[in-house]
Amino acid sequence: MRRATPAQESADTLLDAVYQVVNALAAAPLWEDVRALGIGSAGPVDLAHGSVSPVNIPAWRDFPLVESVSAHPALAHRPVVLAGDAVAMAAAEHRHGAARGHGDALCLVVSTGVGAGLILDGRVRHGLTGNAGHLGHISVDFDGEPCPCGANGCLEGIASGTAITRHALSLGWRPPATADTPAVAAAARAGDTAAVAAFDRAARALAAGIAATAALVEIDIAVVGGGVAQAGDVLFSPLNHHLRRYAAMPFLRHLHAVPAELGPDSGLVGAATLAESAAPAAANLLIDGRR
Amino acid sequence: MRRATPAQESADTLLDAVYQVVNALAAAPLWEDVRALGIGSAGPVDLAHGSVSPVNIPAWRDFPLVESVSAHPALAHRPVVLAGDAVAMAAAEHRHGAARGHGDALCLVVSTGVGAGLILDGRVRHGLTGNAGHLGHISVDFDGEPCPCGANGCLEGIASGTAITRHALSLGWRPPATADTPAVAAAARAGDTAAVAAFDRAARALAAGIAATAALVEIDIAVVGGGVAQAGDVLFSPLNHHLRRYAAMPFLRHLHAVPAELGPDSGLVGAATLAESAAPAAANLLIDGRR
Repeated sequence: MRRATPAQESADTLLDAVYQVVNALAAAPLWEDVRALGIGSAGPVDLAHGSVSPVNIPAWRDFPLVESVSAHPALAHRPVVLAGDAVAMAAAEHRHGAARGHGDALCLVVSTGVGAGLILDGRVRHGLTGNAGHLGHISVDFDGEPCPCGANGCLEGIASGTAITRHALSLGWRPPATADTPAVAAAARAGDTAAVAAFDRAARALAAGIAATAALVEIDIAVVGGGVAQAGDVLFSPLNHHLRRYAAMPFLRHLHAVPAELGPDSGLVGAATLAESAAPAAANLLIDGRR
Repeated sequence: MRRATPAQESADTLLDAVYQVVNALAAAPLWEDVRALGIGSAGPVDLAHGSVSPVNIPAWRDFPLVESVSAHPALAHRPVVLAGDAVAMAAAEHRHGAARGHGDALCLVVSTGVGAGLILDGRVRHGLTGNAGHLGHISVDFDGEPCPCGANGCLEGIASGTAITRHALSLGWRPPATADTPAVAAAARAGDTAAVAAFDRAARALAAGIAATAALVEIDIAVVGGGVAQAGDVLFSPLNHHLRRYAAMPFLRHLHAVPAELGPDSGLVGAATLAESAAPAAANLLIDGRR
């Protein structure tokens, strides 16, 4: 089941939307077997307090999501397990997808933003507050364009789908109808110079960010999902080419990037995977701030 | 005891220098109590094979250091424990220095190069090959100057002492006698515009690298040692200022940089700390490729 997030509404309206999902889950025949509820939420999250402050959901700031959802009558005696959405996606790709069998991996979601989760020593790295893997706002261009976050040259501002489209347009790409990332990808596939250059720049920035992660914690695989990854070879070919360059140290020679195997439900699968560690069977809930 | 590394000599001459250190250790009155030998070596290292390929020691490439040192008669029945030198420094600062009591920390050595080690969940992160924390060759300027490693805009090329001195000179700094980092630091302290700008640029790049690490794995402290850290406030004041900017996410608000507490022997202390995990009392050996 998928419900729009009333992202611009009040905190109560938002929680009501969540309750409706829980109501529907609780009415399902299998509910009796459910032992825990996993939630993957847009970040930042705060695992220590069970609260969330999703950038795209203004009414929720330090919103006590775990406590609020736990108060639903259907969840009595069932633990509610919170994780960041990209961390949940990483858990899913590690358990069931492209990172299966890798002890150390980075899993990215590249769409309108850039998010990521880390697997270290075979386990999800949440970090103290649950925001580890926050790759979108690392600076790969320390004296570059100001980012709304306050830093300069953040990866998200260069490699997101929005940034790719904007860069292609600035290089003279003429969109056929809609100016979006699939259209840039189609143009790049057809050999359009501006579109190819826009994907190449995003691939360089992503390669720098992935290589930095690999140098810092040692990973040998980067799993890339999200809308931009749908571009296929148009993204992965320059990405793996530039990875060889940015990850030049001998101990990084096996590092490569592959497409995610799970689809848009990977956050849900991951939330369930993480909740399973709390209890053997779990339902799950993904709040991504999208309509 | 400290011995020059005959870095340009043959592999055998190098090993002989190491053996002389072991001979001297074995002649010490306390040797009978020593249960293990810890080695901190310049990287890259390869923990899986016990070998080292220090960039500044050309004759050692995949050199089987653990096996070779273990063959010394005085080391019979004593395990030899290898770590990267910056990883060993991180272990020391975590156990006895500025990162004491922090579950998650980054410890940097900024001198002629930039190295680092990571503490995650209260333990040293070696990574599969022992090179985790390799901060010097992460790119903070993905379309910047080519680095000898093959990438562009590596942190080491911007923030090392060598880079600071070069940058100050390029901005018109007139060295009093020797053009080195302490002289640039003294000039910056006296208000020299070019010297201040050179330290500020290095501080921005370091802040970007430290903030990236914090966003990726969640740390709240960065311990900075090495020759450049001797500049004191000339480095730490702009560094902490820029950290506030590059680490803009709310979950990183406690992140700050502090000077290392242990001196040049921190690598030795760390090698012993790591060897202690193999045995209760340990001697130690640091190979840094310096004369």
